[in-house]
Amino acid sequence: MKSRFSTEAGRVEAFSDGVIAVIITVMVLELKPPSGTDLHLLREILPTFAAYVLSFVFVGIYWNNHHHMLRASDGVDGRAMWANLHLLFWLSLVPFTTRWMGENPSAAGPTALYGFVLLMCGFAYTLLQNALQAVNGPDSAFTKAVQGDLKGKMSLAFYVCAIGLAFVSTILSDVLYVVVAITWFIPDRRFESVISGRG
Amino acid sequence: MKSRFSTEAGRVEAFSDGVIAVIITVMVLELKPPSGTDLHLLREILPTFAAYVLSFVFVGIYWNNHHHMLRASDGVDGRAMWANLHLLFWLSLVPFTTRWMGENPSAAGPTALYGFVLLMCGFAYTLLQNALQAVNGPDSAFTKAVQGDLKGKMSLAFYVCAIGLAFVSTILSDVLYVVVAITWFIPDRRFESVISGRG
Amino acid sequence: MKSRFSTEAGRVEAFSDGVIAVIITVMVLELKPPSGTDLHLLREILPTFAAYVLSFVFVGIYWNNHHHMLRASDGVDGRAMWANLHLLFWLSLVPFTTRWMGENPSAAGPTALYGFVLLMCGFAYTLLQNALQAVNGPDSAFTKAVQGDLKGKMSLAFYVCAIGLAFVSTILSDVLYVVVAITWFIPDRRFESVISGRG
Amino acid sequence: MKSRFSTEAGRVEAFSDGVIAVIITVMVLELKPPSGTDLHLLREILPTFAAYVLSFVFVGIYWNNHHHMLRASDGVDGRAMWANLHLLFWLSLVPFTTRWMGENPSAAGPTALYGFVLLMCGFAYTLLQNALQAVNGPDSAFTKAVQGDLKGKMSLAFYVCAIGLAFVSTILSDVLYVVVAITWFIPDRRFESVISGRG
Repeated sequence: MKSRFSTEAGRVEAFSDGVIAVIITVMVLELKPPSGTDLHLLREILPTFAAYVLSFVFVGIYWNNHHHMLRASDGVDGRAMWANLHLLFWLSLVPFTTRWMGENPSAAGPTALYGFVLLMCGFAYTLLQNALQAVNGPDSAFTKAVQGDLKGKMSLAFYVCAIGLAFVSTILSDVLYVVVAITWFIPDRRFESVISGRG
Repeated sequence: MKSRFSTEAGRVEAFSDGVIAVIITVMVLELKPPSGTDLHLLREILPTFAAYVLSFVFVGIYWNNHHHMLRASDGVDGRAMWANLHLLFWLSLVPFTTRWMGENPSAAGPTALYGFVLLMCGFAYTLLQNALQAVNGPDSAFTKAVQGDLKGKMSLAFYVCAIGLAFVSTILSDVLYVVVAITWFIPDRRFESVISGRG
Repeated sequence: MKSRFSTEAGRVEAFSDGVIAVIITVMVLELKPPSGTDLHLLREILPTFAAYVLSFVFVGIYWNNHHHMLRASDGVDGRAMWANLHLLFWLSLVPFTTRWMGENPSAAGPTALYGFVLLMCGFAYTLLQNALQAVNGPDSAFTKAVQGDLKGKMSLAFYVCAIGLAFVSTILSDVLYVVVAITWFIPDRRFESVISGRG
Repeated sequence: MKSRFSTEAGRVEAFSDGVIAVIITVMVLELKPPSGTDLHLLREILPTFAAYVLSFVFVGIYWNNHHHMLRASDGVDGRAMWANLHLLFWLSLVPFTTRWMGENPSAAGPTALYGFVLLMCGFAYTLLQNALQAVNGPDSAFTKAVQGDLKGKMSLAFYVCAIGLAFVSTILSDVLYVVVAITWFIPDRRFESVISGRG
């Protein structure tokens, strides 16, 4: 039974990796060359480029943590599969919000929507985590590993703040987005012991 | 012999996953930012967004069921490989019909074509199922699992109705598309016992 | 030694599958919705659609045969890796020539170039086959399986004819392209015995 | 423990392959058909095509060497994962600089930026190599294999020269880019003995 589960998880991982690889790569297609050939003109696309870097880091973080979480789980079931597709759906909107914010860096709407999609990604990630907890059972090493999850809850709070602050100053929102990215830069170590304990 | 078949199925799965991952992700590239930065302007792209969500769910359903079906099969042969490419062909047209319908939500033509491509996807899925039945043999657990297939037949009937109703009211067609998506939301459990019986 | 080779071949297969999956899927992005919402307007995009179907079949054939050939080989070396990238390069130009021919179905230039890229794909496939023969050795089952290769040689001859005929009538070239596609529709069975002999 | 590391490396490889497959394939989408149907008009897109060929070769070289390097390593850790994402980030900018240089072949800015992104890719590759050295330990076969790395250092020096020369003559920079590509055409054999020694 366990081996079937692992294979299932492998398929979900592979499909998710494919979707995330496309998301992270097509974003750069939005980066249009500047209107001339002078290097100073690159300043024109600096906001779009900065938005691209930020989103690359966020999607990279999701890939990294998603990968650790699935690996730590004993398997996936139908609910977890849909929770995973739900997460991929919100991640797939990141190129859209990145483009809109990049083209309008000082406008409240695009900056707030950027945060809203990140908030939904974070929320979808939590739903996937809950679905996997149900698969692994309440006393599993998986469930113990995800308990607490202070960083995840704080990120959601920061996104909410950033959405509100966008209507005051988009710079403040941008700072909050960067802060969240930095706190996640360190990979999620909660699952390391679960994975090691198995190997 | 069996192990070769499984490897073959693995390759077909991996390639199909790659194609489906690209299909599901490039659709969002059609989602163009609104003409201004006011959040109210997002209403402009609401039909396109709704069409994207619907297609994301449909393609997600195909990924999910495709995956269960291939896994339940003892293998694939040349006919099944072409049947699979045929299914991927019709799925690859979904981004095109999604865009056309999203840009013209109240026009009969695009809404009918959207249903036509879904109908062909459903038909292609049935052909793949038949090809895999031939590989597994008439008395196999696979063949027993796919017998009946009421939901599949009803979906095809619903698509035909939706195509016709598009010329009366596109809203009715849209409702039918959503109804079909909801009925498929629950993963295809027919193969679960086949897979378990093997593990 | 052999197991390392197989793993190497697995990587080359997986990367090639990824590239081919993207090639086959991004082509449909060129399929722009017609200028209105009337279904009759789909006739506008019929040549582009027909070119897309043809190219989908050609790329699908390459995926299918590439897959059988790599599986039949004992491994890959540096030369085969570059021969494979060379094949992927020419395949990657198919979306470009498909678009140009689809937009100008009755113009000689685009139809000839379409054939030229197919010719180069066929040539690159032969180079890859030769590189894999060198890996497997002159007396290997692989080398015996690929000897003769009448269909491959005839395809190259047909492409050359189609390129020339494009300047007489593009319809004749189109017919030749379809004929070649049909002859390849049947999967390359030469490697089946090699693979079976191993399993 | 070792087996877990290998699985991890497998995931990093698979994700990197996906990203690189998309990068190498979407570049061709920038290749717009010429303004007419005369084959002579292909001369219009010759610079863009030449830039595409060059970038295809560079990305192909990275895929090839990346693959050998990860395979030679005993595993990956968190630092190596981020170093890998950092490399993928710079590689993802190649389609952007390719397009800009292809559209402005005789302008200094785009040619210099093209070299700058290649320089950063080379630098990111070195960082990944260092991270993997730390995983494998100072006395490992991996570390011995990467010592020296004359070709890598010379490439970086060539890129710096090409960036400077772009402001004198872009032809000179182009020549240097081609020279670097040729020197790397021969796959990195340093890891071959490491991999063989293990098999």
